[in-house]
Amino acid sequence: MKGVILGINPDARLVDVTHDIEPFSVIEAALLLKGIARYFPGGSIHVAVVDPEVGSERRGIVLRLNEQLCLGPDNGLFSLNMAKNVSWEARKIENPELTLPAPHPTFHGRDVFAPVAAHLSIGKPLDDVGPKIDDPVRLDLAEVERTRDGLAGEVIHVDHFGNLVTNIEADMLDRSISKIVVRQTELSGIARFFSQVQVGRPLALINSFGYLEISVNRGHASSVLGVTRGESVRVLWA
Amino acid sequence: MKGVILGINPDARLVDVTHDIEPFSVIEAALLLKGIARYFPGGSIHVAVVDPEVGSERRGIVLRLNEQLCLGPDNGLFSLNMAKNVSWEARKIENPELTLPAPHPTFHGRDVFAPVAAHLSIGKPLDDVGPKIDDPVRLDLAEVERTRDGLAGEVIHVDHFGNLVTNIEADMLDRSISKIVVRQTELSGIARFFSQVQVGRPLALINSFGYLEISVNRGHASSVLGVTRGESVRVLWA
Amino acid sequence: MKGVILGINPDARLVDVTHDIEPFSVIEAALLLKGIARYFPGGSIHVAVVDPEVGSERRGIVLRLNEQLCLGPDNGLFSLNMAKNVSWEARKIENPELTLPAPHPTFHGRDVFAPVAAHLSIGKPLDDVGPKIDDPVRLDLAEVERTRDGLAGEVIHVDHFGNLVTNIEADMLDRSISKIVVRQTELSGIARFFSQVQVGRPLALINSFGYLEISVNRGHASSVLGVTRGESVRVLWA
Repeated sequence: MKGVILGINPDARLVDVTHDIEPFSVIEAALLLKGIARYFPGGSIHVAVVDPEVGSERRGIVLRLNEQLCLGPDNGLFSLNMAKNVSWEARKIENPELTLPAPHPTFHGRDVFAPVAAHLSIGKPLDDVGPKIDDPVRLDLAEVERTRDGLAGEVIHVDHFGNLVTNIEADMLDRSISKIVVRQTELSGIARFFSQVQVGRPLALINSFGYLEISVNRGHASSVLGVTRGESVRVLWA
Repeated sequence: MKGVILGINPDARLVDVTHDIEPFSVIEAALLLKGIARYFPGGSIHVAVVDPEVGSERRGIVLRLNEQLCLGPDNGLFSLNMAKNVSWEARKIENPELTLPAPHPTFHGRDVFAPVAAHLSIGKPLDDVGPKIDDPVRLDLAEVERTRDGLAGEVIHVDHFGNLVTNIEADMLDRSISKIVVRQTELSGIARFFSQVQVGRPLALINSFGYLEISVNRGHASSVLGVTRGESVRVLWA
Repeated sequence: MKGVILGINPDARLVDVTHDIEPFSVIEAALLLKGIARYFPGGSIHVAVVDPEVGSERRGIVLRLNEQLCLGPDNGLFSLNMAKNVSWEARKIENPELTLPAPHPTFHGRDVFAPVAAHLSIGKPLDDVGPKIDDPVRLDLAEVERTRDGLAGEVIHVDHFGNLVTNIEADMLDRSISKIVVRQTELSGIARFFSQVQVGRPLALINSFGYLEISVNRGHASSVLGVTRGESVRVLWA
């Protein structure tokens, strides 16, 4: 992919964000892309390929999100970035002049997304990519429910360190908390950093992308607490 | 290695291709290098170090392949790129003015290949590197045999996902196929992409570098099918 | 972190050194940073984040070491580089104009070290970062003892390949060696490269950063020899 980009735009500045997304985990990639976008300058072009359906009828898209462009399969990878206040425009990639000839069915990253991104980076207009679409796939994340006494959310991702990422965002925690419950673990509030608790002990914190996360200091929360994706997480107000 | 290169050529554009080759697997690196070379522009310099014999008498070489340069140990790493239609020239690295002083016996990547590559990138002529050699080491890949009723090849590599890469290339598959046989698994033809079969089911496809590959959709073919490197793979014509 | 840097200095040249330090292993990172610094040109800025105490009262620092700058937590990461002949100056990071607003308690890499590094890379003076400090944390490495008949050191790190890195440096080995002893293994001298011994056999060598290391050719020395960090290593003179 990098060779293809540099062949089209020798001045492209390539930035590796990660190559460690769990295979096929669209949700992990989508959470990461949501988390990083705001930290990149306008004009950045994100190419992301977590693509279990590569080669099938799923579309390839370019998504303009405010002043950044995103390229990848149309499977919801970028959909968590499509918040209410974000202006967006989506195109289906169709123009064969912008891709490599005869794209290989299992490597659209190299043969489709990389060359289209490179052409866009040297000023090719978005209009040339393909027709506008208004229905890019959106991930169906579980919604957090406001209950009588707090919030009911769930674990939406277990990361490589075993941390339990929930769908509860920082701005929902707008009242004083009495406890946070996940399975048999009860936490009395939100810590600010890991070493506030002893090594091996659980804690809740707001992770660096703004989500409530259950962790174990220097440990693997998922194993230690016996919790996996989908487990319910409850926040009780004081 | 990157620091050494930038110290000699501050404008070098560094591209990480991979750091995930299986330790000591010259064949995996060679297949990758063959696969990627055509996607990089002319003038690219490839430095590759999979070097189990580092420090021994094995030579270090620069290989010009068409308009690209390759640097690394002379152990066959680049030899799959030396196809019939490729013009090549090989040099043994000998000039101590182009390496770091007193190269460390176990890190020629940093002390030999990186600085020589950097000097070549700023225009140092190939002649300065060392004498021409006409016998760079070539990997001895098993040859595919044309049998009475099809092709007899073998598994030459199991990748990190467990996919079984064979030595059968796409252009050898010039007739209609009745089945593909590996151990107790029979496949009725070549799929175009993974999700054509159910999750957990095997399939054959042409991988993105042009080789016949046996995979399992979202699974680990080597474990599921009980097949490792060297296993024979037969293609039967219809 | 890369997005933040490029937003401040679009011409920054970003170099990934490693993302594979063992989680929380300050000593592994410190040994690596000591090993690489001399290979980078003057003016290089190293940002390193192995930071088990992130968010606590530990300071963030900028360290000038000769003509290079180092940014990270004040936990000894860079302290092995503060040798006798190195001129250094340390600053506590305090200026909120150089960091992102409201740094997240668990991601100082992104919100503190990256933006401060970027500002320094475009010429912001070191004086602006914060006050001078004269007591940056230093790692307390075990000292090598000169005994009646040789040297007594220890294993200070086991790397990903299982190699046993000791605190004995090459320039201490200034006499002829009769044997090197670690647990029940006796080695008769120092090899120059791995393949001098048979596959699976142990050897001692000077690693590429100048430390005595006990390895097993193509094997995992720590498992094979039953040795972990802290084990004593003795060198006996001839």
